[in-house]
Amino acid sequence: MRSSLVVLLTDFGTQDPFVGMMKGVILSRAPKAAFLDLTHQVPPQDIRRGAFFLKAAAPYLPTGSLVVAVVDPGVGSARHILYARSRRLSFLAPDNGLLSWLPGPFLEVRRVTRAPAPGGARPSRAGSGRATESSRMSGTFHGRDAFAPIAAALLQGSRVSGLGPRVASWVRLRAPRRERRGAGLRGELVAFDRFGNGWTSLESGGLPPGAVVRFRGRALGPVRHHYAEAASGRALAVAGSFGVVELAVRNGDFARRFRARIGDPVEIQTPR
Amino acid sequence: MRSSLVVLLTDFGTQDPFVGMMKGVILSRAPKAAFLDLTHQVPPQDIRRGAFFLKAAAPYLPTGSLVVAVVDPGVGSARHILYARSRRLSFLAPDNGLLSWLPGPFLEVRRVTRAPAPGGARPSRAGSGRATESSRMSGTFHGRDAFAPIAAALLQGSRVSGLGPRVASWVRLRAPRRERRGAGLRGELVAFDRFGNGWTSLESGGLPPGAVVRFRGRALGPVRHHYAEAASGRALAVAGSFGVVELAVRNGDFARRFRARIGDPVEIQTPR
Amino acid sequence: MRSSLVVLLTDFGTQDPFVGMMKGVILSRAPKAAFLDLTHQVPPQDIRRGAFFLKAAAPYLPTGSLVVAVVDPGVGSARHILYARSRRLSFLAPDNGLLSWLPGPFLEVRRVTRAPAPGGARPSRAGSGRATESSRMSGTFHGRDAFAPIAAALLQGSRVSGLGPRVASWVRLRAPRRERRGAGLRGELVAFDRFGNGWTSLESGGLPPGAVVRFRGRALGPVRHHYAEAASGRALAVAGSFGVVELAVRNGDFARRFRARIGDPVEIQTPR
Repeated sequence: MRSSLVVLLTDFGTQDPFVGMMKGVILSRAPKAAFLDLTHQVPPQDIRRGAFFLKAAAPYLPTGSLVVAVVDPGVGSARHILYARSRRLSFLAPDNGLLSWLPGPFLEVRRVTRAPAPGGARPSRAGSGRATESSRMSGTFHGRDAFAPIAAALLQGSRVSGLGPRVASWVRLRAPRRERRGAGLRGELVAFDRFGNGWTSLESGGLPPGAVVRFRGRALGPVRHHYAEAASGRALAVAGSFGVVELAVRNGDFARRFRARIGDPVEIQTPR
Repeated sequence: MRSSLVVLLTDFGTQDPFVGMMKGVILSRAPKAAFLDLTHQVPPQDIRRGAFFLKAAAPYLPTGSLVVAVVDPGVGSARHILYARSRRLSFLAPDNGLLSWLPGPFLEVRRVTRAPAPGGARPSRAGSGRATESSRMSGTFHGRDAFAPIAAALLQGSRVSGLGPRVASWVRLRAPRRERRGAGLRGELVAFDRFGNGWTSLESGGLPPGAVVRFRGRALGPVRHHYAEAASGRALAVAGSFGVVELAVRNGDFARRFRARIGDPVEIQTPR
Repeated sequence: MRSSLVVLLTDFGTQDPFVGMMKGVILSRAPKAAFLDLTHQVPPQDIRRGAFFLKAAAPYLPTGSLVVAVVDPGVGSARHILYARSRRLSFLAPDNGLLSWLPGPFLEVRRVTRAPAPGGARPSRAGSGRATESSRMSGTFHGRDAFAPIAAALLQGSRVSGLGPRVASWVRLRAPRRERRGAGLRGELVAFDRFGNGWTSLESGGLPPGAVVRFRGRALGPVRHHYAEAASGRALAVAGSFGVVELAVRNGDFARRFRARIGDPVEIQTPR
């Protein structure tokens, strides 16, 4: 099931050559690597947004892909790098909650303690083959100096067991609330997109006919299929591209209009 | 002539993982697919800009490429997906005019009515193998749920005739005006770029020496080869990268300065 | 050592299909080409930034890559295209200083005077096989019409000697200052990133313990490993991702706060 596809999600941006350098290190060591960029524009250090994107994208990634996710406010602190494996995908990410919301259980989670040497095609000044806590290896660019060499080693067939010990606990973000409430559902706002639309914890599939979304006592109507079903300036709930109910204002900014915040409750009332 | 290259043009932006999810679906089903991104930053729903970009880029794309273009204000409405084939390239796009300005005639145009099942690597909740009007398949993400599966099926050798019936009519944007006028040419502004430069309908090649561009009675001088040929703040006409005459203000914004609009006439006067 | 990897760095931006067209031309002529994008968002015509990025990224690029760098304020003027080769990498770039700061000597530098015909998959109107000064070939899009065909020809095995004569001189940016000064080092600000952080000419590796950075008489403290080591709003020096000392303001804009300019001196004082 192993492929050579590396799926990347970072907060490195696209204006500097950081992502290219990271890919360069991987290609230098694993020439057959291919890349699929999810996005490199996660807002800096926004772990929740990154976790939400990974959850949303995972079902659509090719089986056997290695997902390397780097959104890492704690770079250089004592946090570790995690390797995790689910039935279809493998993951490398900082142990900061970024992998919290992925669907399906992990079959294996390891703390990476024995990392390949950092550096590019040239011999690294840091020496080679040294066993080291990867989270303390160097500077401010773990994507290039820690994640990329580990990813390349895995692509080249390194045994996972050599990365470090299996662990039973790791950092997890609180799971988004989602509960039955009378005849309806109660969830919450999980994250906002750049337009101010709010992603909720409520799946948009399988809702009974007549279900109505409420936010702060206000009825937003049924879950629409398209933004165009509301008049300009009107708030609405829509079955968004991520599979969850999204709250939006047609041609407007939901977060700003309602001063909405992560964690605000959202309800779906279904007819009895 | 079939290759495995998928050329993408969308208005999905690069901040969300939408393009990555779309590619993930294609790679899950057609592992040898390769991608060439034209841009994913067409201004949201700007069909004219998308059509102009496709026209400009098409001559430079490898023969056998499958171009998938998704700029789609009508997503979820009754509009269909078109498959079109020219001598060198194939296209998938919403039937909204996006393919209007491509050079050369189409040898074949089909309305896609029998689409592969949507979804990612996991079995889709929507069932599989279902014949369906693709334009009504689901939610707000046809790029992933409709276009990607169709593209993958074509890459994997699905017969084009299975997509749906040939059609003789489809949505076309009005062709940009371009006509002889006395000893000169009369065209119009077709679109603006993000700097406010105006692309015209007038090709920049083959103009006779001495030809002068006029806009609203004002002579902008001959068609220059480089912006640097005008002084800062001066309006000029330039032979732009898209092969057409562009109207610009050196270090300024032509659209704003002249309150220029799509469709405004542009003239080229040639010496007798 | 030749590979099919083309590494790209340009100031073309990502909103227009320019990079895609350039890749299309390369793929049309060299179907096995693969691409690694360093960035296409070098600020327009900012040769220094481009040169700095190339210097920083080069050590991490796979051996045998062809680096095509196009940041070119003089497009259409009399400047030439350079081909250069170092021990591990090859380069195509305008002769404007963009290659100035690459590590290691060039084994060979040529001025490109015999370029392949421009154009895409269709026969070019400009004719074919014509020997020409590439810097005057056409319009405003040398990336597509000059650099791409040359890159493709090299990938397809064209002999380098056919590109044009070896040259002994080419445009070089002044080397960033970096000198011993008493017990310390004196360097300068080389470029700024988009957040206003300043990249210096001083390498961050191998500094003795106790070394302190000074800027305009102000002590910024030791070279930190992470921005988080300073309080919000405080100026600091950090061992940045590019391997040089960077000057920053935590959660602020160093360039604006200090009205700092390229060339401003930066000192490192080491304990005796």
